[in-house]
Amino acid sequence: MNRVTDELLRMVSDFTGAFKGAFNIRENGECAGRQSTDNIKIESKPNAPGLVVHIRPGTKGETVYIPACVTQGNINDLVYNDFYVGEGADVTIVAGCGVHTEDEGEATHNGIHRFFLEKNARIVYREKHVGTGGGTGQKRIDPVTEATLAQGASLEMDTVQLGGVDETYRKTWAKLAANARLVVRERIMTDGDEHARTDFEVTLAGEDSGCDLVSRSVARGQSHQEFYSSIKGLTRCAGHSECDAILAENGTVTASPALEASHVDAALIHEAAIGKIAGEQILKLRTLGLTEQEAEEKIIEGFLR
Amino acid sequence: MNRVTDELLRMVSDFTGAFKGAFNIRENGECAGRQSTDNIKIESKPNAPGLVVHIRPGTKGETVYIPACVTQGNINDLVYNDFYVGEGADVTIVAGCGVHTEDEGEATHNGIHRFFLEKNARIVYREKHVGTGGGTGQKRIDPVTEATLAQGASLEMDTVQLGGVDETYRKTWAKLAANARLVVRERIMTDGDEHARTDFEVTLAGEDSGCDLVSRSVARGQSHQEFYSSIKGLTRCAGHSECDAILAENGTVTASPALEASHVDAALIHEAAIGKIAGEQILKLRTLGLTEQEAEEKIIEGFLR
Repeated sequence: MNRVTDELLRMVSDFTGAFKGAFNIRENGECAGRQSTDNIKIESKPNAPGLVVHIRPGTKGETVYIPACVTQGNINDLVYNDFYVGEGADVTIVAGCGVHTEDEGEATHNGIHRFFLEKNARIVYREKHVGTGGGTGQKRIDPVTEATLAQGASLEMDTVQLGGVDETYRKTWAKLAANARLVVRERIMTDGDEHARTDFEVTLAGEDSGCDLVSRSVARGQSHQEFYSSIKGLTRCAGHSECDAILAENGTVTASPALEASHVDAALIHEAAIGKIAGEQILKLRTLGLTEQEAEEKIIEGFLR
Repeated sequence: MNRVTDELLRMVSDFTGAFKGAFNIRENGECAGRQSTDNIKIESKPNAPGLVVHIRPGTKGETVYIPACVTQGNINDLVYNDFYVGEGADVTIVAGCGVHTEDEGEATHNGIHRFFLEKNARIVYREKHVGTGGGTGQKRIDPVTEATLAQGASLEMDTVQLGGVDETYRKTWAKLAANARLVVRERIMTDGDEHARTDFEVTLAGEDSGCDLVSRSVARGQSHQEFYSSIKGLTRCAGHSECDAILAENGTVTASPALEASHVDAALIHEAAIGKIAGEQILKLRTLGLTEQEAEEKIIEGFLR
């Protein structure tokens, strides 16, 4: 494992020199370390790059780490990871991703993650993305997430793009059976000429299923962000989606959410707000002795927390 | 003017047997009466069906009536009306539309309205749509509204679809210069197998321009409604859009609003909520002695007011 990977892992996946429990470290398209546990089996995917992770029914309190790093230009890493989560399991998955280039070569990671949650399974999924390195090559991360939730299952996605990623296209698709829950907290920071696009498509197919999508973004510099979401309510269900964006400098944002209620008992709500930080917020912090720039940083930090 | 036209006019355009001031009545594609005033000149459009209406700068307190009725099947009426509103004028335009068929022939009205508001001109535009008659022929109303607002101009659109329109596709496009204002209050009621689609595209191009779009809809029976909106903020501006929908029986609704902030001082907000009437609201009115159905009617009436 090289030095850059070590640094990226510390940023994106709570790495402190070692992982406890099940893990797989992917470095420039290859496996740089793997460990299974009694309850969590990590295997190479036959016929395609990537992993098959089996989590035994009833597994509680364990964490699986599956970070992926690209540490040089001219690498376009594509990986397919499948997670089979047994009935009643309650597990955390940490899937950070860092891309780094020091030259003009593009450093790209495409992670295609599929989650199959059995009855009453619960997953907390944390994903941090970062781009680093002084190279001129583009740093790209294009994650695709597909989640199929059985009755009573719950998926909580907590995703953050810390910065330095030139281009990202994030697609999240989920289908929920009865009483299943999806919670998404997404925070994306872009600067310079970066571009981020995020697409959610959630189908509330089972009775009393529900989702809560909250996307917060900060667009600075000349960066541009696009938010798309679609919540389909096919039966008695509750869906909420929210997109809040802060603009700074010359950043621009587009928000395009859709609600589709095809059942009288589907209750769907959306909110979106785009704007810059209110002057009075800045003023309040300046009276406490912060400079205008420090005040802005503080507000953005709080907004993305 | 036939009896059906008389009845439709009473429903859609405050008609009480006569109009005061400037008016043009369109009946089955022909002119059934017209009057200009000193300040408001109504003329036939050269080279196309429709009107050219000139409102003199500074005109205050007048109302122009331009209702259109289709009173039988197998009529597909297409009309182009242009309104040139002079600087500082402050006028109300009433543009109701009724379609009626007693047979299997389709009764359709397509009104393409263009508004050119000069500096500080102010227009209140009221439009009621209704379909009547026991025929099996489709009743369609497809209005297109294009508004160009000069500096400080203001357009307030108050549009209602009362019911009985099988199919409607409503397109509204507006471009606002500095300090201009657009306010839209749209209410659409559908029932049976009716289908309504509404599209807004508003460009806030001038500094401190603003828009406030509020669409309320009730979808009953098997009816389906689609709401699309797009607000583009190109400069310092404020845009708000809201889509609230009540579902009853097997009605379904799709809401797909978009916000596009391409300037750091553009402040854009959207809200959408789709659902059926809350049980406690019904209960409250039932304790006052109303039946469940009466309670529902009362709530819907208030919602669409």
